Amino acid sequence: MEIPVVQNILNANDQIALQNRQLLDEHDICVVNIMASPGAGKTSLILQTIDALRDRVNIGVIEGDIASNIDADRVAAKDVPVVQINTGGQCHLDAPMIQRSLAELPLGHLDMIFIENVGNLICPVSFKLGEDLNVMVASVPEGDDKPYKYPGIFVAVDAVVINKIDLLPYVRFDVAAFRELILGMNAKASIFEVSCETGQGIADWVEWIARQRDANQNKE
Amino acid sequence: MEIPVVQNILNANDQIALQNRQLLDEHDICVVNIMASPGAGKTSLILQTIDALRDRVNIGVIEGDIASNIDADRVAAKDVPVVQINTGGQCHLDAPMIQRSLAELPLGHLDMIFIENVGNLICPVSFKLGEDLNVMVASVPEGDDKPYKYPGIFVAVDAVVINKIDLLPYVRFDVAAFRELILGMNAKASIFEVSCETGQGIADWVEWIARQRDANQNKE
Repeated sequence: MEIPVVQNILNANDQIALQNRQLLDEHDICVVNIMASPGAGKTSLILQTIDALRDRVNIGVIEGDIASNIDADRVAAKDVPVVQINTGGQCHLDAPMIQRSLAELPLGHLDMIFIENVGNLICPVSFKLGEDLNVMVASVPEGDDKPYKYPGIFVAVDAVVINKIDLLPYVRFDVAAFRELILGMNAKASIFEVSCETGQGIADWVEWIARQRDANQNKE
Repeated sequence: MEIPVVQNILNANDQIALQNRQLLDEHDICVVNIMASPGAGKTSLILQTIDALRDRVNIGVIEGDIASNIDADRVAAKDVPVVQINTGGQCHLDAPMIQRSLAELPLGHLDMIFIENVGNLICPVSFKLGEDLNVMVASVPEGDDKPYKYPGIFVAVDAVVINKIDLLPYVRFDVAAFRELILGMNAKASIFEVSCETGQGIADWVEWIARQRDANQNKE
């Protein structure tokens, strides 16, 4: 009797993530999945990045929220293509949602797509979307103990953007200890310190993300 | 042929939540489920409440986190009974976890139990634990647009504690608009403005929660 070997069989989400990946590769589009707690500054980081890169890179955005169009409206005001996904209660984006969103974007004219995931440090990590890069925004007022409590996301991401550093004088947050903790869990993580409010540190982040996009372009 | 009528059949979680409720009623214990984004100040609010009520109320605490004992250690330093639940990845507490935790607490000596749920504005709302009250902590630096994006939790709670009001001078947050938005969704919600850092506003919250406990006691 043959014993069936079950491996490399993708679940439904991962199958569609792979289709998204193939579609995006056909168009040479670099996709960045941005995850964070509610209110950490995901939208603000995307808006700052659009401003900094708009002369060099054609950017599209997919906004994920339980409800409302607030974030998509902020992005649309920058005159870039944007799709709002309302999950209607679901705590994360999934690959089918991204598939439907990609059908609404002018892929032939885009170089990069930023996906703003639902504000949640836990569930989004488990769902592939077809992205090239996973980035976490961690905001200073949330505290520097988050890697202990939510290790999964810190291990999974390519970069951690520490946002709201303009609030460092007013809260307890040890940047050096936070960096050390992240690197102890994820030695390859790039770490940036920014304030989307003042613009401090944004240039370093933007140069890094532009380099990732160039590397993506050159992989063919 | 009889058509089976399926109603009032509780799911497994709700059945155990009901058992928790019965056990807690036998001991006249008022249970408060505290939910929030990561880093909004759930533990700090519990610590402030313990300090304010410790001469009047015997408090126990159940700490929920994906990983680590950091929060339970902070509570234990106050010399109150505490149980740490590590969900190991699960994005919310559920009734069976609380059932196991209650078995570890000296119920005969407690008047109130605070449950600190996993930091997440979405998933915890859907799981009954056996609690009397649901309270949300919303921190000022998260921004005042959260009710639009995460309506489910704002509708579900008995009270919203606006924390980190000491940061109001440094961030954009319209307290009056935020209150109005919450009350438009949930007219019965009690709203408090506090700083767990400076202690400002804690007295009003503590008096409210103590009154809820007294009302609970008198319901027999």
